[in-house]
Amino acid sequence: MINSYLSQPHLLGIKYITKEDIELILQTADNFKEVINRPIKKVPTLRDVTIANLFFENSTRTKISFELAEKRLSADVLNFSSGGSSVKKGESLLDTVNNILSMKVDMVVVRHSIAGTPSFLSQHIDANIVNAGDGTHEHPTQALLDAYSIREKFNSFQGLHVCIFGDIAHSRVALSNIFCLQKLGAKVAVCGPPTLIPKFLDDLGVKVFYRVKEALEWCDVANVLRIQLERQDVKYIPSLREYALYYGIHRELLDSLKKEVVIMHPGPINRGVELDSDVADSSQSIILEQVENGVAVRMAVLYLLAGNSPM
Amino acid sequence: MINSYLSQPHLLGIKYITKEDIELILQTADNFKEVINRPIKKVPTLRDVTIANLFFENSTRTKISFELAEKRLSADVLNFSSGGSSVKKGESLLDTVNNILSMKVDMVVVRHSIAGTPSFLSQHIDANIVNAGDGTHEHPTQALLDAYSIREKFNSFQGLHVCIFGDIAHSRVALSNIFCLQKLGAKVAVCGPPTLIPKFLDDLGVKVFYRVKEALEWCDVANVLRIQLERQDVKYIPSLREYALYYGIHRELLDSLKKEVVIMHPGPINRGVELDSDVADSSQSIILEQVENGVAVRMAVLYLLAGNSPM
Amino acid sequence: MINSYLSQPHLLGIKYITKEDIELILQTADNFKEVINRPIKKVPTLRDVTIANLFFENSTRTKISFELAEKRLSADVLNFSSGGSSVKKGESLLDTVNNILSMKVDMVVVRHSIAGTPSFLSQHIDANIVNAGDGTHEHPTQALLDAYSIREKFNSFQGLHVCIFGDIAHSRVALSNIFCLQKLGAKVAVCGPPTLIPKFLDDLGVKVFYRVKEALEWCDVANVLRIQLERQDVKYIPSLREYALYYGIHRELLDSLKKEVVIMHPGPINRGVELDSDVADSSQSIILEQVENGVAVRMAVLYLLAGNSPM
Repeated sequence: MINSYLSQPHLLGIKYITKEDIELILQTADNFKEVINRPIKKVPTLRDVTIANLFFENSTRTKISFELAEKRLSADVLNFSSGGSSVKKGESLLDTVNNILSMKVDMVVVRHSIAGTPSFLSQHIDANIVNAGDGTHEHPTQALLDAYSIREKFNSFQGLHVCIFGDIAHSRVALSNIFCLQKLGAKVAVCGPPTLIPKFLDDLGVKVFYRVKEALEWCDVANVLRIQLERQDVKYIPSLREYALYYGIHRELLDSLKKEVVIMHPGPINRGVELDSDVADSSQSIILEQVENGVAVRMAVLYLLAGNSPM
Repeated sequence: MINSYLSQPHLLGIKYITKEDIELILQTADNFKEVINRPIKKVPTLRDVTIANLFFENSTRTKISFELAEKRLSADVLNFSSGGSSVKKGESLLDTVNNILSMKVDMVVVRHSIAGTPSFLSQHIDANIVNAGDGTHEHPTQALLDAYSIREKFNSFQGLHVCIFGDIAHSRVALSNIFCLQKLGAKVAVCGPPTLIPKFLDDLGVKVFYRVKEALEWCDVANVLRIQLERQDVKYIPSLREYALYYGIHRELLDSLKKEVVIMHPGPINRGVELDSDVADSSQSIILEQVENGVAVRMAVLYLLAGNSPM
Repeated sequence: MINSYLSQPHLLGIKYITKEDIELILQTADNFKEVINRPIKKVPTLRDVTIANLFFENSTRTKISFELAEKRLSADVLNFSSGGSSVKKGESLLDTVNNILSMKVDMVVVRHSIAGTPSFLSQHIDANIVNAGDGTHEHPTQALLDAYSIREKFNSFQGLHVCIFGDIAHSRVALSNIFCLQKLGAKVAVCGPPTLIPKFLDDLGVKVFYRVKEALEWCDVANVLRIQLERQDVKYIPSLREYALYYGIHRELLDSLKKEVVIMHPGPINRGVELDSDVADSSQSIILEQVENGVAVRMAVLYLLAGNSPM
């Protein structure tokens, strides 16, 4: 395990790092955003570091984003997806990861459908663990790139109103965003159908809206989540059609407001369900900036965990 | 998007490039063929270029050939196949590609089962697009490597007779080859069962044979396509057995001719169906040369699209 | 094909190499074990060598281990797995491999479910072949890393008693281990249910035990194989429960011995079947050392096959 420059050797969740850690990551990402916009987009910083990407759950953008971040840092990259692996033969997770680590891997980026997997690994193996999404728990690098994208637009989080729309109960993106934005000083609300809003939000000091229009009137930034019907096990769930009707964000709705709300989405978008195309592709949207910033933020996380001091 | 040295910023199809473009690619490939036959097979030319290989359709040789070409040019390579990706979650093609591009990718090599996908992408995204096969439309790098292999054997295309055998109606290889060979000055014919020959060939000035023997007597080069029964939706299709009997190219048939026809095949071969092993593996065959030339030709295409002047 | 420093241009099986070859590999691995434990874990030795990993059978650890070994040697690596490839389209093995080789690949690491595949390839193609497991025939690099791990513990093989436990009849690991250990001077036994012990072991001079306790009393090292019920086609096979009861190695059994037996396992472990967790994770076990040594040994094999003289 490499000596981290952050307060933690791992990035298991936003809940476990400090406000200072977050700010350090965002500042460091500024430098990497410059790097990846230069003609020569690589730095040799992690040339002697081997990183294993262990994706036990499907992913396109997160996996590619991490892989690019690692390659831009000149790390040696090992990719491992659960399809076609010994996981099918019933090998335990710990055995799989221990085996990979015995081959001298320094850092592990892991996505798993079971909440707590990265934390479990961090207690048993000698490597820096980065959580790339664990069940309905956390997805910390997504929250960091979201925060980075908001900061790029507004400079400061003080007094900023951010509302997260969608299936809050099952979303690791929502939970990581709530922790991250509150630590940075923003006010956070959520909006969605009552059956998809968890009870514990009161304890976190998160405002709850059940009507989209009211939520939009309140917020400066709308972070619209993907509706993932395939994951839900709750009763009284709205159909996609109902959801689009009552909670979908469309042009007319935005034009009825007296201000311009910034639109975000972690992707992939269900166009016409939670977000209409004329909103997603408009100048109010910073969705593609989020993707670009993802590489810079992940470079910053890996760079600092690998013990490098901020530039 | 990088400033191309060709007349186009993209390679969408042979139809859209000039004879001069084709000749430039073939000449440049000469240099790269030397490079890949040296002990040190790499050049640093594309060291600062990131290329994404997006294969939404299965492929072995084309994918590996592009990947090798990119690595020999020292590019950073991102591989993406549709299995295990967000494409399964219903994300639109444009969203997928836009997301990948937001991560600062310079060139995109794309294969897709829908004709027109590369062209569609080139209108919407800011990267050089290379078509690696789109539906039944075009497969331009295959045609270029075929042309390169013929030129290596005959030096000139003037007056050369090339016949393409097989399922012409459903073949992107056939269409790209017809455009390419005609632009270079060769005479092109096709041969196959009437149900697998499209009507529009007359307009293209392509000669049609329905009997293999006649076609072989006419041609200097026989480019034998793979019979892909899995793709066909036509009635009155021959069985594999019938096809082999009436259209398969075998030793006896070749020996009955008064000359030696050069045999080509884009692979993978159905041995015993469209081509017998004693033909495929004979000295008349340049099938493995085609594969080797594929890497050199793809290096040339990427090199020129990336704005490098011919060596 | 590169000029090998070993007595063979290929590593097809332990049966086909000499005792001197084996000792050279183990000595060379000593150097690479140092390399991979340094902060800078790479050497530039194979910078101009392209290696294709062709895995026609699922694998996690062997594939990753080879890939890491190749990257630590700075080789260019091409990965090919049978899923999503032309193999599904019915292309013959030889055509697939010939095509890959036409693209100028120097070495091929191959795993295949059919015994004899690497040997077949070595007779037909011009590249150094490394067998990464072929059916129930051999898995030579596993035997070499097992020997390396034993040598690390005992320094010498002279008079050492090694017993292999499990399904000997269907195990390529067992066969390669028997050849390797015997060539190095150790005494080899096997232990398992009678239906899983092949008849030809007598001819090889291998001792056979049917009771675990007796075998453990005889041996210094117990190499416990994975029970792979999915592969077996024999009658009278024990259930997993019966196997665990009569052949599983557990704490109580080991504590009843008057000595400490070294425990090995090629992985992945069926915990609670052939090996209990309190044995696998104990200080008697060198299972994770085996994994670490795997990378060093594979580096040594590739290094010597590529014609480099021992360091």
